[in-house]
Amino acid sequence: MTATVHPITARPGPASLDPLLQLVAPALNSVNEIILARMQSDVAVIPALAGHLISGGGKRLRPMLTLASAHLLDYGGTRHHKLSAAVEFIHTATLLHDDVVDGSEQRRGKKAANLIWGNQATVLVGDFLFSRAFELMVEDGSLKVLKILSSASAVIAQGEVDQLQTQRRIETTEERYLDVITAKTAVLFAAACQISAVVAERGEDVEAALDSYGRNLGIAFQLVDDAIDYAGDGAAMGKDAGDDFREGKLTLPVILAYKRGDSEARRFWEAAISGERNSDADFAEAIERMRAVGAIDDTLERARHYGRLAVDAIADFPAGKAKSAMTETVAFAVQRAY
Amino acid sequence: MTATVHPITARPGPASLDPLLQLVAPALNSVNEIILARMQSDVAVIPALAGHLISGGGKRLRPMLTLASAHLLDYGGTRHHKLSAAVEFIHTATLLHDDVVDGSEQRRGKKAANLIWGNQATVLVGDFLFSRAFELMVEDGSLKVLKILSSASAVIAQGEVDQLQTQRRIETTEERYLDVITAKTAVLFAAACQISAVVAERGEDVEAALDSYGRNLGIAFQLVDDAIDYAGDGAAMGKDAGDDFREGKLTLPVILAYKRGDSEARRFWEAAISGERNSDADFAEAIERMRAVGAIDDTLERARHYGRLAVDAIADFPAGKAKSAMTETVAFAVQRAY
Repeated sequence: MTATVHPITARPGPASLDPLLQLVAPALNSVNEIILARMQSDVAVIPALAGHLISGGGKRLRPMLTLASAHLLDYGGTRHHKLSAAVEFIHTATLLHDDVVDGSEQRRGKKAANLIWGNQATVLVGDFLFSRAFELMVEDGSLKVLKILSSASAVIAQGEVDQLQTQRRIETTEERYLDVITAKTAVLFAAACQISAVVAERGEDVEAALDSYGRNLGIAFQLVDDAIDYAGDGAAMGKDAGDDFREGKLTLPVILAYKRGDSEARRFWEAAISGERNSDADFAEAIERMRAVGAIDDTLERARHYGRLAVDAIADFPAGKAKSAMTETVAFAVQRAY
Repeated sequence: MTATVHPITARPGPASLDPLLQLVAPALNSVNEIILARMQSDVAVIPALAGHLISGGGKRLRPMLTLASAHLLDYGGTRHHKLSAAVEFIHTATLLHDDVVDGSEQRRGKKAANLIWGNQATVLVGDFLFSRAFELMVEDGSLKVLKILSSASAVIAQGEVDQLQTQRRIETTEERYLDVITAKTAVLFAAACQISAVVAERGEDVEAALDSYGRNLGIAFQLVDDAIDYAGDGAAMGKDAGDDFREGKLTLPVILAYKRGDSEARRFWEAAISGERNSDADFAEAIERMRAVGAIDDTLERARHYGRLAVDAIADFPAGKAKSAMTETVAFAVQRAY
């Protein structure tokens, strides 16, 4: 095995997901087959609706993390293929419910499912995929995996409800915001990685290391997503820049800009988050106000901090293709905004 | 043990749920404690929203069936308490999602949760309860129970999507309608009963018998619900008579009235189901048209047929309080409309 280590601090060039993709490509084909087979139903709208999201431009990031983690542990079996599919189903179910909850118009660069099939079918197909995820786990038969993913699912739902409460509350603290994104995003990243340690039977320390890698990577991803909404190229992300702003979504750049702003700035942010300022001109003003206090840069710096924790979490594992790919994935996560 | 058998055909007096309630009362207290403990969350809206439905007037019919089935098998343990709570959580989750999907205004005689807390929180609290159900099952540790209830959940979601399709399709057959209500209602009744046979380790024949009892009872219940919408006392049911009619919901009384009607009647039903006739006068006309062709009576006769199947399914079990209570529950189910 040729080992190339890419420490994220020492690599100036653009990082990409390619090493991760190359690492997991053969296994990912098998996972995709399981996903396609298990989203079928006699009720035709189910595969149509589920396929719109599942087949349409998703990165499969979470299942790829399960597969990469299994590589890192030199696990030679295939049990994690079904479990990767289960993780993707849970993720897809939460996206479908999110789209209904947020009234989304776009998802992954396509029209959101709820706008094509309606909120009703979208909620129910989410429920269906969630049930299918558990069926896949039951077939695998590990109660520990079932415990990790049922507990993750409960935390995700709690996080989503929690976010509904914070959505328009400008005085939300950074700590509380981190709790929300940990629950909403990072916990499933963590579970996706940890379950490979369970099937590889590598013990609780290894489980904890992979949980930590996934959790910190997830936080980094979410923080960069938050920053990109005020800085990035919407087309590349499959979402429009300014979406969060127009929805009055409270994210870390807003929290920092509010906290660091003078009383005039605070009035602007209060109005923005309560939905009174959501024009293009307001959005341009928001970006300017953020830049003036370094809110976007510092959100990205926070993301790099969590990225470093993710890299450190797998420091003990032997060098190799898997470790390199997982390290470069972190670099990709934090560099996307540039 | 004093054994009193109540064959449903030979008992003229009013049946009630009292024997079932008396049979399971002590265990039901323990189940209620588990339910209350497990719907808690740091996110305050979760227990508030969940409690609105769970504490408010629910019959706990499904958990009671789990408990009664355990009695029937002389199971002496307590594992089924957690599993009863899991069944109730799955049921509550589907009710919350139903209320969002149907735009319900009332549930169990109270304002529907979605009207108080909004569709967003209602969807997400449903997801939370669904996850909690799986956590409870994982704690119990039976993969077979997990399989039964994850598969039931997938079937329920499919049935709900299927019903969205049939909702305004007047030419739906009775067979197809039975498939929908089997998926939507009867499968969870069946699972609630079957899981007691699993924890009591009584083998597949006993599992199949209890599955059959629950499944046929569930169909009977749903058909009587359908009939009551055109015949019953809405206040007693916690729903208004005519709700199904005004929502253009296709149920068996409508299917029979349409099928047996002349061309004028068919035009009426087509207009009714497509939402063009939903006034009080239209509802009165609907009832009259149903009565003219015996559609309500024959829906109730179908319900009695499934009720007889339910009673026969447990015929092999020894007489006793449990069998009596389960038999009278069937009688209650089919007599409610009178």
